[in-house]
Amino acid sequence: MSIGETHYATRAAKMRASEIRELLKLLDRPGVISFAGGIPDPALFPTDVIREGYAAALDAGGAALQYSVSEGYVPLRQWLVRHMASIGVPCTIDNIVITSGSQQGLDYLGKLFLSPGDTALVTWPAYLGALQAFNAYEPRYDRLAPEHGNTTPAAYRMAAEAAGGRVALAYLTPDFANPSGETLSLDGRRRALALADELDIPVIEDAAYQQLRYDGEDVPPLQALDVAAKGGDIDRSRVTHSGSFSKTLAPGLRIGWICAARGVVQKLVLTKQAADLHTPTINQMVMHHAAEHAHAAQVAKIRAAYRDRRDHMLAALLRHMPAGVSWTRPQGGMFIWVTLPEGLDGAELLARAVEQGVAFVPGRAFHADGTGGNSLRLSFSLADAAAIETGIGRLGALIAGAAQAAA
Amino acid sequence: MSIGETHYATRAAKMRASEIRELLKLLDRPGVISFAGGIPDPALFPTDVIREGYAAALDAGGAALQYSVSEGYVPLRQWLVRHMASIGVPCTIDNIVITSGSQQGLDYLGKLFLSPGDTALVTWPAYLGALQAFNAYEPRYDRLAPEHGNTTPAAYRMAAEAAGGRVALAYLTPDFANPSGETLSLDGRRRALALADELDIPVIEDAAYQQLRYDGEDVPPLQALDVAAKGGDIDRSRVTHSGSFSKTLAPGLRIGWICAARGVVQKLVLTKQAADLHTPTINQMVMHHAAEHAHAAQVAKIRAAYRDRRDHMLAALLRHMPAGVSWTRPQGGMFIWVTLPEGLDGAELLARAVEQGVAFVPGRAFHADGTGGNSLRLSFSLADAAAIETGIGRLGALIAGAAQAAA
Repeated sequence: MSIGETHYATRAAKMRASEIRELLKLLDRPGVISFAGGIPDPALFPTDVIREGYAAALDAGGAALQYSVSEGYVPLRQWLVRHMASIGVPCTIDNIVITSGSQQGLDYLGKLFLSPGDTALVTWPAYLGALQAFNAYEPRYDRLAPEHGNTTPAAYRMAAEAAGGRVALAYLTPDFANPSGETLSLDGRRRALALADELDIPVIEDAAYQQLRYDGEDVPPLQALDVAAKGGDIDRSRVTHSGSFSKTLAPGLRIGWICAARGVVQKLVLTKQAADLHTPTINQMVMHHAAEHAHAAQVAKIRAAYRDRRDHMLAALLRHMPAGVSWTRPQGGMFIWVTLPEGLDGAELLARAVEQGVAFVPGRAFHADGTGGNSLRLSFSLADAAAIETGIGRLGALIAGAAQAAA
Repeated sequence: MSIGETHYATRAAKMRASEIRELLKLLDRPGVISFAGGIPDPALFPTDVIREGYAAALDAGGAALQYSVSEGYVPLRQWLVRHMASIGVPCTIDNIVITSGSQQGLDYLGKLFLSPGDTALVTWPAYLGALQAFNAYEPRYDRLAPEHGNTTPAAYRMAAEAAGGRVALAYLTPDFANPSGETLSLDGRRRALALADELDIPVIEDAAYQQLRYDGEDVPPLQALDVAAKGGDIDRSRVTHSGSFSKTLAPGLRIGWICAARGVVQKLVLTKQAADLHTPTINQMVMHHAAEHAHAAQVAKIRAAYRDRRDHMLAALLRHMPAGVSWTRPQGGMFIWVTLPEGLDGAELLARAVEQGVAFVPGRAFHADGTGGNSLRLSFSLADAAAIETGIGRLGALIAGAAQAAA
């Protein structure tokens, strides 16, 4: 027999074929203006401080190149304790584990919390990478809608039991969500936590974009609210906060973290040890150096740059989109979510858009139930003002033509 | 309720508490001579060429710090194609995926091939980290003994079915195994492959130590034998070859690879994308630089250094071990496996050994069935000749005393 017929465990066979991979390939096509990837602009990377960090780590002896502990580099975890305190979450280094990007944290949380047939509560739409990470553990999904939803805890529970499992976790991105660009209100956050308390489930707070606010007022992280409600004791909190340096400093080093109750962190450390031993030692040392020396200035710099691009894209959408198209006005992050007139399909549009030299991500990929066909995600992080104007102009003309053809 | 009562998915709850973590802590105790970790000597790291590599990667523009594809960095995969050819495995870059250390490859292979209740065939003893990676997917284990075993394929199959699953994979380390130090003969390799053919299962070849031969003749990798048997077509091979730079160049960068049939690699790439997106871009570029410029010289250098330490440890064992103690004489790698007289227990010995200032790993941890109590693993990679003499002297006296007390 050929290896092509080899049995694969169900969970792996059920994984979706990748859309992100295809999209990364689109970015390389010459002449295509890409609003596809949620990718930081490399021109904004703090390359000099990272270069200094590598030199310093290598000058400090062999430790940078040696095996290290699964929890992560202590000075980096100490820096993160201060960072978490600055956003309202009191914790100690025992509440923090370093992961190889926040994507790895999502995989480990899925491994820890999900058994096949369990229900994961996610927003419609939700971050595609979280759905892909969770899919490996074969959950079913139910819709979490803390802003406007009115599903009762009992209804969630009954639906999960009818499907042969239990409600196992809630996952959401409260700030400038990927892909919607929306920010969950304080009331919405409180409702999400109340629901989780009723269902007695962990809440995964994806905070990848949390530092990238361009206007409006900060809303406390879910974890800050929950820790406060639990008497200031993070070890009693049900929220696991998933953080990342990929959007603020640089993604290529693959450094993220999870902040959670000590009991959860201990299990994540064992999970990580079995899964990849530890995140690269030298990269953790370098990220600590960069965080110490450049984090505040870097956040200020990229906020200004991405705010400007967001404003250009919102203005271009106003100028170029035909009637019947609507979009979100994000207060931060990298994404604008566009809703097309009924009858238009984002995936069909993409094929023609690439021919016209503009790319985006069709919305259906982000919907656990396969809806969302008439939507698409635009990222404004990588294109300059001129490219935004040209690209949105092309896209507007294409949508206008498609709407006319459909009418 | 407190988060401590949160439900965890079965597979995570079943993971063993870590022994490696405890052992890493032992290494830090002042005055303890450690033969515990399978840890390369940092004095041997090619630090200068790695430093050059980081500088070159950062000078080449933003790509080193940016997101990249899940398959891995193309020039590194091209280098690995040449490396695999040099050990008898013809392949293309489509047969290679870069992983964050070979430990991650083992986790992904477990995810791909194992469902709960399936049977994994492993040697007694086997690499603890492989058992930990597989445990997350809840297999049962059966004993693989290609050198001397006489279990028939039908007997393996019946036992697996009686336990409610099927035989899903075989895992072995043919060269200078961790922990036994043993090398599988050519006949043993052929028997292992014939068994896998009969059972129609994938074979995971752990080649972490493959480059570290100190004497004797090279034996072809399982994958080389299987590819040759399949008409030279790796895409028809059932062997996945798991390789690592951790023992040759440096572990702290976390770079390993899997070489396998294209169909398996494609599934691993999807698995990796969902689990951590990709291995750090800059580390892959640096490992490519180091492989191009230092691999051959580095392998020659560490072979000489570790051969010398192995010889010191074998000589010290001869001088200091009491009658009734036996040990392996490895042709490479980092480990010597010691069998104690019946009635002595490696774990009990360790507590007293640490008090006497010497550490090792008790043998039971490496046995999927919990046997192996009267054995222990010694690593000779990290200690110099004087420390080996002193440490083995202490250990010999301790074992002699324990044997006398037990008699």
